[in-house]
Amino acid sequence: MKLIIEKDYEAMSQVAANILLGLMNENRRINLAITAGNTPKRLYEIMVPQVKGRSYYENVHYYNFDEIPIVGSNGYGVTMRNLDNLFFTPAEIKKEQLHPLDETNWQTQDERIKKAGGLDLILMGIGSDGHFCGNLPGWTKFGAETYSVDISGDKAVREALAAEVGGDINKVPTEFYTMGPKSVMAAKHLVMFANGKKKAAIVKKAFFGAVTEDIPSSILQLHPNLTLILDEEAASELSN
Amino acid sequence: MKLIIEKDYEAMSQVAANILLGLMNENRRINLAITAGNTPKRLYEIMVPQVKGRSYYENVHYYNFDEIPIVGSNGYGVTMRNLDNLFFTPAEIKKEQLHPLDETNWQTQDERIKKAGGLDLILMGIGSDGHFCGNLPGWTKFGAETYSVDISGDKAVREALAAEVGGDINKVPTEFYTMGPKSVMAAKHLVMFANGKKKAAIVKKAFFGAVTEDIPSSILQLHPNLTLILDEEAASELSN
Amino acid sequence: MKLIIEKDYEAMSQVAANILLGLMNENRRINLAITAGNTPKRLYEIMVPQVKGRSYYENVHYYNFDEIPIVGSNGYGVTMRNLDNLFFTPAEIKKEQLHPLDETNWQTQDERIKKAGGLDLILMGIGSDGHFCGNLPGWTKFGAETYSVDISGDKAVREALAAEVGGDINKVPTEFYTMGPKSVMAAKHLVMFANGKKKAAIVKKAFFGAVTEDIPSSILQLHPNLTLILDEEAASELSN
Amino acid sequence: MKLIIEKDYEAMSQVAANILLGLMNENRRINLAITAGNTPKRLYEIMVPQVKGRSYYENVHYYNFDEIPIVGSNGYGVTMRNLDNLFFTPAEIKKEQLHPLDETNWQTQDERIKKAGGLDLILMGIGSDGHFCGNLPGWTKFGAETYSVDISGDKAVREALAAEVGGDINKVPTEFYTMGPKSVMAAKHLVMFANGKKKAAIVKKAFFGAVTEDIPSSILQLHPNLTLILDEEAASELSN
Repeated sequence: MKLIIEKDYEAMSQVAANILLGLMNENRRINLAITAGNTPKRLYEIMVPQVKGRSYYENVHYYNFDEIPIVGSNGYGVTMRNLDNLFFTPAEIKKEQLHPLDETNWQTQDERIKKAGGLDLILMGIGSDGHFCGNLPGWTKFGAETYSVDISGDKAVREALAAEVGGDINKVPTEFYTMGPKSVMAAKHLVMFANGKKKAAIVKKAFFGAVTEDIPSSILQLHPNLTLILDEEAASELSN
Repeated sequence: MKLIIEKDYEAMSQVAANILLGLMNENRRINLAITAGNTPKRLYEIMVPQVKGRSYYENVHYYNFDEIPIVGSNGYGVTMRNLDNLFFTPAEIKKEQLHPLDETNWQTQDERIKKAGGLDLILMGIGSDGHFCGNLPGWTKFGAETYSVDISGDKAVREALAAEVGGDINKVPTEFYTMGPKSVMAAKHLVMFANGKKKAAIVKKAFFGAVTEDIPSSILQLHPNLTLILDEEAASELSN
Repeated sequence: MKLIIEKDYEAMSQVAANILLGLMNENRRINLAITAGNTPKRLYEIMVPQVKGRSYYENVHYYNFDEIPIVGSNGYGVTMRNLDNLFFTPAEIKKEQLHPLDETNWQTQDERIKKAGGLDLILMGIGSDGHFCGNLPGWTKFGAETYSVDISGDKAVREALAAEVGGDINKVPTEFYTMGPKSVMAAKHLVMFANGKKKAAIVKKAFFGAVTEDIPSSILQLHPNLTLILDEEAASELSN
Repeated sequence: MKLIIEKDYEAMSQVAANILLGLMNENRRINLAITAGNTPKRLYEIMVPQVKGRSYYENVHYYNFDEIPIVGSNGYGVTMRNLDNLFFTPAEIKKEQLHPLDETNWQTQDERIKKAGGLDLILMGIGSDGHFCGNLPGWTKFGAETYSVDISGDKAVREALAAEVGGDINKVPTEFYTMGPKSVMAAKHLVMFANGKKKAAIVKKAFFGAVTEDIPSSILQLHPNLTLILDEEAASELSN
């Protein structure tokens, strides 16, 4: 594991941008799976003006590693909508470079990625509960590849997801989809980033504690090429 | 995982030799950790005449991933003695290329390997109980780096090890040493090989079943670059 | 450059086989361009029984780096016929793994290779005149990519090629095709092998002398990953 | 070759920074040879605040690829002085990370680099005459490794160098030192950058014309991993 501690969210986002842009400049097809959500907002702001309109980045292909379909809606689910708003549309990424995971194709996600040469890098955030991608504590098996999570019977999860689909619980699907630990571990490079005091406890547990399915992201410690980027607050519970 | 099924022990050993020799020919320092025991006997027979006296293999450095010291004896423990007999002496490997792990230096094994650029490949066998290296069921934590296993209180293990040290239980040490799952997973390429009917059940469980500390080698499923080489007997419980 | 000197043709062929088979075992698409002719005969004899019928080598794709069409004949030219006889047919390589270069597609050879991820390795021999692939002294520019060589006006070359097409000069084409120095240098690994006294002088000049278009293969000295495999006779003019 | 055309010097410098910083973040020893002079000024301004005081970049080792000693002066020559001012001192790079090439050690430069695992990347500029590093037209052999250039008898070169050593021709040495084409081509990645109208003609000739010792940098076309970064002015003579 390479551990990078930067003083704040801005500096942490800049380091993540450096790693992504460095890779994207290579002279070969690059397959990236990148995260939606709050953590990467500044990262994408840094990247957009540097990527927009650049034909020399057409070698980069983008994958999402999880998806929550929106009931009654055509088109993208929650993750791809978010990525589209934050990065793909403002950076003018071409459709041919996008490889959405969704309810129609999750069973072939691992095979499609393998045929394309594998993922070069996955950029992820960590949940306060230790989840990564859609791998939730209590639902995750380390041996899982891309799978469907049946949440039809879990009121708490469904209510939590309502916010993601615009507040209406009727738009929450009965299943969502995620690459499992085995699919994620198959990538060549994993980059996890986290900022803020509220992540400090889980960062310590997940990356400096026991490897256990109770904290799904703890498995990432075992990847031969993991980069962990933290701001000082997220690193504040690490000793020395 | 790349799965290779060959018809018999001879063919399985030849494929393993091809992989090792191919890597050893690269024009840079190569760090290998290789297994002792019965499984690699034919492999080393194939390799010895091709490696012996070749200065163009002086870029290759050898590590052992576990060691059982012999009480009352100076010099190598069980693993290095065995590797020495099977390969290092007949292949005339120079002392400068050997990096023994032993009771005096196990605490710095991971750091020394990291400084040397990391292991390029680890060749391992699997025990019928699912152990790999010295990572035994019931004693293994997935998050462990190189560690010491205190067997002073375990009569069964001590008796099992007596055979390894020449039959005399007084020569069995109170501790042995092994690279843990985290140290092994840090290598760039893992090669596991197994032959014979007696390995068929554990092969199925370890590489096609759940990832669990009860079967330590099951963690290896999650390495991004694992090659599993089996003869037909060891593969006989795998469905098509 | 990694220089490997082996005692005879058999040992030299074995080392070349080790390098090829090691690479072919990787768990990704592998693109190889391999040589026809006399030098690789023993190499292919070693490889055929190890490759034949193995589905785990279906990740390997084969390219020829030059071709001499045969006038009045359909199907393969001289190079692909020879590779077919020596390796593709006895090793039962599937058509989908073969990517022939010929008179209909040489203009797109470089682009097709680039799209497929580039060549991982090119195995070549050297001519006594210093040519490699179809890059002849007097006809070769270091900056050339895949090109056509117009031999319609060169009686000596046409007569020399008659032997290759079965002795009938009317079957000698007016053009042949070859990957140029720039196309060859773009591969990730170059392996050149040579055996016999008759190659000793040119090996010294090409790999230990000046880099000049008069000796086309001298450019290969500048590749960052070149392996030169010689038997003792071919190495006999090298000092120390 | 990967060709990157950016609109101006600022954008060109940013792309070069992205490539360097991306590589420097890898979790292994990284060996860089970087250029002094005018072209990289903005690049180092971008990099300094991102590198200064960061312990996570202590894996990066820095080499200079040429040096002009200053007569009568102890300490660094022209190149290392310049690099020190532009980057090493403001970025607070530790002495242990610096590997100066100078008049005392140029004969072992290639061997030292090889032992350290080779150069991962060389960043270079191009002279209007087509020189790269210290490889001048009329003085350069493609087959040269690190060498000494005897300028004692060349008044024009000596006068040109006087400016570099502070204007006093008595401080111009009789020899300077440079990695030759063969040493440069041995690196894993070459990055060449150029800006401004005055470079437009030579950029076209060197990277889109014949490979010839008369234009030393034309050899770089043949490297399997070359990135060429231009601003629009430097690219203005390239067709479409």
